[in-house]
Amino acid sequence: MSVLVVGSVALDDVETPAGRADGVLGGAASYFSVAASFFEKVRAVGVVGDDFPAEHLEFLASRGIDVSGIAAERGKTFRWGGVYSESLNERETRFTDLGVFEAFAPKLAPEHRCSEFVFLANIHPTLQLQILEQVESPRFVAMDTMNFWIEGTPAELERVLARVDALLINDEEARQLSGEHNLARAAVALRARGPASVIIKRGESGCLLFGPDQVFSAPAYPLEVVRDPTGAGDCFAGGFLGALAREGDLGPEAFRRAVIYGSVVASFCCERFSLDGLRDLSIQAIESRFDAFRSLTRF
Amino acid sequence: MSVLVVGSVALDDVETPAGRADGVLGGAASYFSVAASFFEKVRAVGVVGDDFPAEHLEFLASRGIDVSGIAAERGKTFRWGGVYSESLNERETRFTDLGVFEAFAPKLAPEHRCSEFVFLANIHPTLQLQILEQVESPRFVAMDTMNFWIEGTPAELERVLARVDALLINDEEARQLSGEHNLARAAVALRARGPASVIIKRGESGCLLFGPDQVFSAPAYPLEVVRDPTGAGDCFAGGFLGALAREGDLGPEAFRRAVIYGSVVASFCCERFSLDGLRDLSIQAIESRFDAFRSLTRF
Repeated sequence: MSVLVVGSVALDDVETPAGRADGVLGGAASYFSVAASFFEKVRAVGVVGDDFPAEHLEFLASRGIDVSGIAAERGKTFRWGGVYSESLNERETRFTDLGVFEAFAPKLAPEHRCSEFVFLANIHPTLQLQILEQVESPRFVAMDTMNFWIEGTPAELERVLARVDALLINDEEARQLSGEHNLARAAVALRARGPASVIIKRGESGCLLFGPDQVFSAPAYPLEVVRDPTGAGDCFAGGFLGALAREGDLGPEAFRRAVIYGSVVASFCCERFSLDGLRDLSIQAIESRFDAFRSLTRF
Repeated sequence: MSVLVVGSVALDDVETPAGRADGVLGGAASYFSVAASFFEKVRAVGVVGDDFPAEHLEFLASRGIDVSGIAAERGKTFRWGGVYSESLNERETRFTDLGVFEAFAPKLAPEHRCSEFVFLANIHPTLQLQILEQVESPRFVAMDTMNFWIEGTPAELERVLARVDALLINDEEARQLSGEHNLARAAVALRARGPASVIIKRGESGCLLFGPDQVFSAPAYPLEVVRDPTGAGDCFAGGFLGALAREGDLGPEAFRRAVIYGSVVASFCCERFSLDGLRDLSIQAIESRFDAFRSLTRF
């Protein structure tokens, strides 16, 4: 089944205790697409500037990703710089240069409007809504968001929330958006506002899925080496939607497996800078780590 | 199989966002014993002052706990006061009055020296060693510790570590004791110093077991109401050792089940103040939540 993602395609300058990487491929849509591409055909919609290296688009295309929806505009590509704390649990944004992303107004090509699985990455909720209005009867729509929109555009965000099937959000954002510190209560409150499923991402503590009639807890893979957590949340989303689309099943068991596939791809993402942990990754390695998650949790 | 615990028996003044409780039953040995008593016969060794309410000892005895090792001395019972942050993730100690616990020098009664499962709760490492020398060929010894001993008596602590089968420790202490921030690496480092098994307790993020040839991740139960997390770590230890002793099996699968039983009892502990969450608890309710943990994690 077809998977569509709309979000940022960026160049990142990242510094972590393991080193630094400058001008590397980043952005939610990049991470999501590559993660999902291990499972299904992906259509990426975004925008880049005329400084965007052709090799990055070639890499995405080499993963079978349809990059025809990534517009190339005159100007600079969205550029983000950040530095992580020693523990990797905190990061400070050094700069955010929106560049051509500032005027991003996604218009879906006719052949992308029939996408069945849609991921609205972390962009302005008004853009998320505009995408939703262009997609014809999607089977499953998931969204992400962030503190900036929770504080700045709550009414618009609420309208998107009311129309999606799943909200994928980190723990701090879940608390902020719901006004509840307790995550179980936060999920109840958020589900009442629209999404049947709420997945709360907790970094090295794994994630919690709250869905109709089920709660599922998945650990993070206990990696001994974490070089760069950038993009792990979007890789999780990509693995999750990709696996769900591959199964074509939206039952509770399929959701659980998809959460694990999301966790698997996110774990590979963290082992290297940028998307390097996914460049030479095979579906066999993914399935093998999926089995390792089972060993890690079964009793 | 017999379970022995040596540690504090205390009166606590606790304040959490859910309310406050003053002069309530606390202390590691109390929490541990009650938790373990759902699975096996427990012998508690500690000391109380002449202000210690008889009803608390009667409660412990009503759970089948052998309280003959809890000495009553002239003076005040160990008293601790603490207040939790709104998120429950941080707590500030308001006071620690050691009272009769300051001169605690546990001497095991002859009938307690043959205990098969031993838990050295968080006390001075020299006392932990003294206990170990009094127990005749235990099958399984586990220990806890805290930042105070890690900083103050590292050489003594190291000697205990070298002689135990399992270290149960929280994440921050694991980091401090190992000098490694990454928990997987912290566990490797700690296992090299003695204990074949290291269990890292992570509060609302669950716990990780690192043992011979296995890593196991258990979630925390996603409670909607947490009133008082005091003693949850000791209830975990009590459920863990109690369940292990009940099975009488030290294989990897038994360890995993014991970790879940520990998590189950800890979850009930957090729902009420002091030991109130365990007062009316039945083994049926424990087994039922054990099954709920399976539903929460299986895929």
